[in-house]
Amino acid sequence: MEKTIAINAGSSSLKFQLYDMPSETVITAGIVERIGLKDSIFTISVGDEKIKEVTDIPDHEVAVQMLLDKLISHNIIKSYDEITGVGHRVVHGGEKFTESVSITDQVITDIEALSELAPLHNPANVTGIRAFRKVLPDIVSVAVFDTAFHQTMPQSSYLYSLPYNYYEDYGIRKYGFHGTSHKYVTERASDLLGRPQEELRLITCHLGNGASIAAIEGGKSMDTSMGFTPLAGVSMGTRSGNIDPALVPFIMEKTGKSAEQVLDVLNKESGMLGVSGISSDLRDLESEAAKGNDRAELALDVFVDGIHKYIGSYAARMNGVDAIIFTAGIGENSSYIRERVLRGLEFMGVYWDPALNQVRGVEAFLNYPHSPVKVIIIPTNEELMIARDVEVIRAERG
Amino acid sequence: MEKTIAINAGSSSLKFQLYDMPSETVITAGIVERIGLKDSIFTISVGDEKIKEVTDIPDHEVAVQMLLDKLISHNIIKSYDEITGVGHRVVHGGEKFTESVSITDQVITDIEALSELAPLHNPANVTGIRAFRKVLPDIVSVAVFDTAFHQTMPQSSYLYSLPYNYYEDYGIRKYGFHGTSHKYVTERASDLLGRPQEELRLITCHLGNGASIAAIEGGKSMDTSMGFTPLAGVSMGTRSGNIDPALVPFIMEKTGKSAEQVLDVLNKESGMLGVSGISSDLRDLESEAAKGNDRAELALDVFVDGIHKYIGSYAARMNGVDAIIFTAGIGENSSYIRERVLRGLEFMGVYWDPALNQVRGVEAFLNYPHSPVKVIIIPTNEELMIARDVEVIRAERG
Repeated sequence: MEKTIAINAGSSSLKFQLYDMPSETVITAGIVERIGLKDSIFTISVGDEKIKEVTDIPDHEVAVQMLLDKLISHNIIKSYDEITGVGHRVVHGGEKFTESVSITDQVITDIEALSELAPLHNPANVTGIRAFRKVLPDIVSVAVFDTAFHQTMPQSSYLYSLPYNYYEDYGIRKYGFHGTSHKYVTERASDLLGRPQEELRLITCHLGNGASIAAIEGGKSMDTSMGFTPLAGVSMGTRSGNIDPALVPFIMEKTGKSAEQVLDVLNKESGMLGVSGISSDLRDLESEAAKGNDRAELALDVFVDGIHKYIGSYAARMNGVDAIIFTAGIGENSSYIRERVLRGLEFMGVYWDPALNQVRGVEAFLNYPHSPVKVIIIPTNEELMIARDVEVIRAERG
Repeated sequence: MEKTIAINAGSSSLKFQLYDMPSETVITAGIVERIGLKDSIFTISVGDEKIKEVTDIPDHEVAVQMLLDKLISHNIIKSYDEITGVGHRVVHGGEKFTESVSITDQVITDIEALSELAPLHNPANVTGIRAFRKVLPDIVSVAVFDTAFHQTMPQSSYLYSLPYNYYEDYGIRKYGFHGTSHKYVTERASDLLGRPQEELRLITCHLGNGASIAAIEGGKSMDTSMGFTPLAGVSMGTRSGNIDPALVPFIMEKTGKSAEQVLDVLNKESGMLGVSGISSDLRDLESEAAKGNDRAELALDVFVDGIHKYIGSYAARMNGVDAIIFTAGIGENSSYIRERVLRGLEFMGVYWDPALNQVRGVEAFLNYPHSPVKVIIIPTNEELMIARDVEVIRAERG
């Protein structure tokens, strides 16, 4: 009867997923949206149904209280006591947090101190943490960081080639993101391959609206494409990925925009949206490209070429690779993107079967049996990782 | 008796190299420094001697006149008529110039119009061009562009993932640099391998104070690490290479610097100098690292890891590689850097012999005979490429 809840709090939203542990069964999931605005929306799954309610929810504390009330009124739990742990997704753990931790006042202070590195996310994450501590003060409460898994990167991977005091004084370095996802697929790949993580060199491609690639050696992140922020790396839905840094002042001068405004363009008007001029949504681009739209095709070309080149670079990083993993929305669902990313990697031992690639959203091997490098789709599950980390810490505390 | 002069004009300097053609023998070479300043310095090689003269040289025209006078007074030529052609290095040819061209008034106008893309270099290059046109109006005069060789890149390589109108309206794209050098070593590699360029996939590493890597397929540049400006790509002597573009506004905010000042830091105080805090000179860093200086070691780690990863990424770009080429100051002379860059590329068929790597500044194969991928040092020769292009155009004009 032990239940763990995984929480992802945004500035005006709260996503939740309730697990029965240790069976890892999802009992319910849902989202509260427009918190603090008029006509907030509360959505929860009950059995096969999604129940939606529109009402004013002034803050996260009220949202959490409402969530618990709904769990009882929908007969999902009988009493609050059944919930024995809560895990919170926190975007930025800086260099401070190299793994998930039990939340204390000091941890909250530390997460807030890191807000400078994630001004949109960390304060929102803390809002969720505080709300749960108020409503359910006695349960185990755990923070799970997007950056933690990448803290194993060696300094030559994470240090930018900038004046060294920028690292010491301002914390300027590569942190990497999507760590919980990269860690999940790493563990799962080890299971699926029947080999211990310690033996494996993996390249994990988390391809969603945000996209990051990681080089995982011996179960440890050695390098990843996102950087100081989630803007870096490959082209994404609306993000530019890496560009010549000299372009920031040049664009400022040409457009009369401030540095912050240019940053906004790089984050919200660039990527596949910027190149195509049509959409940030891969499905739109695939269908437009199929109809002969050159700019949609070009946006896809830039996206896949970037991923393809990262795979080569991370293979070089580890002197080879045992498996390439695709995960997240695009990675799990787009056979088109996977095909284009994989095409032309025979030189490094990647032989994949187009017939096996015609699948969506399921765990599947795409390689021919003889291929030295395996290729696997693994649907990610960050919420489950959060629930698991809660259980680990609950067990440690006895 | 046909002599061609290759010119590289900076804002206050003029480098020259005089060739006997078509024998390609270097007759003399030298440099004029501090043009327009007090105590300008004129240096010229005569036989095995370097002759230096300090005098005031007010402008490039006077420098050219002095150069010609010295050629006569040192008995290097008997009359100006012996010089039948001059080739000028021009840094930026934009999308306009895809190969070397005979200089006309229109060409000068076009080069000046591209100054926005190379504000330090193009105007200086034009100063050199104008000076020669004034002093030697009747000889064949050719512009050779650093960017031209990379104009074969496909759009998916050169387009940034930015709003598309930035490309159309402001010319924002990857141009790439060191093209004359990448082209020279490509031609030379084809000779040394005894195979036509059309058959070859090469990765050319131009590693000097500035460093760029290129993927050359069938004799054509397919991708290169420098970008809109020579700041992009790998860590260099004082340049950062690629960083998360979000760092530009962040550094501005933290340091109170303007965008232009941050750009200055990225160009002049970053790279190996910034990381080590010691020097931008590789020789200093190698010797400091050997003495146990961690930061010098780290600067070298960041430099070599970046190059190593580019090699992997360009191998993926071409689905394999036939030869890796090292050129320019560091590439030709540092066995230490070559070794570290090459270590751990066996997965893609690179097997090299440490004993063969103990050479400096000479053409040499470093691979074991059985290695599928060849590794070659090829000292670059941009001046000779310029002289050759002058001869090609002189021949075309009959």
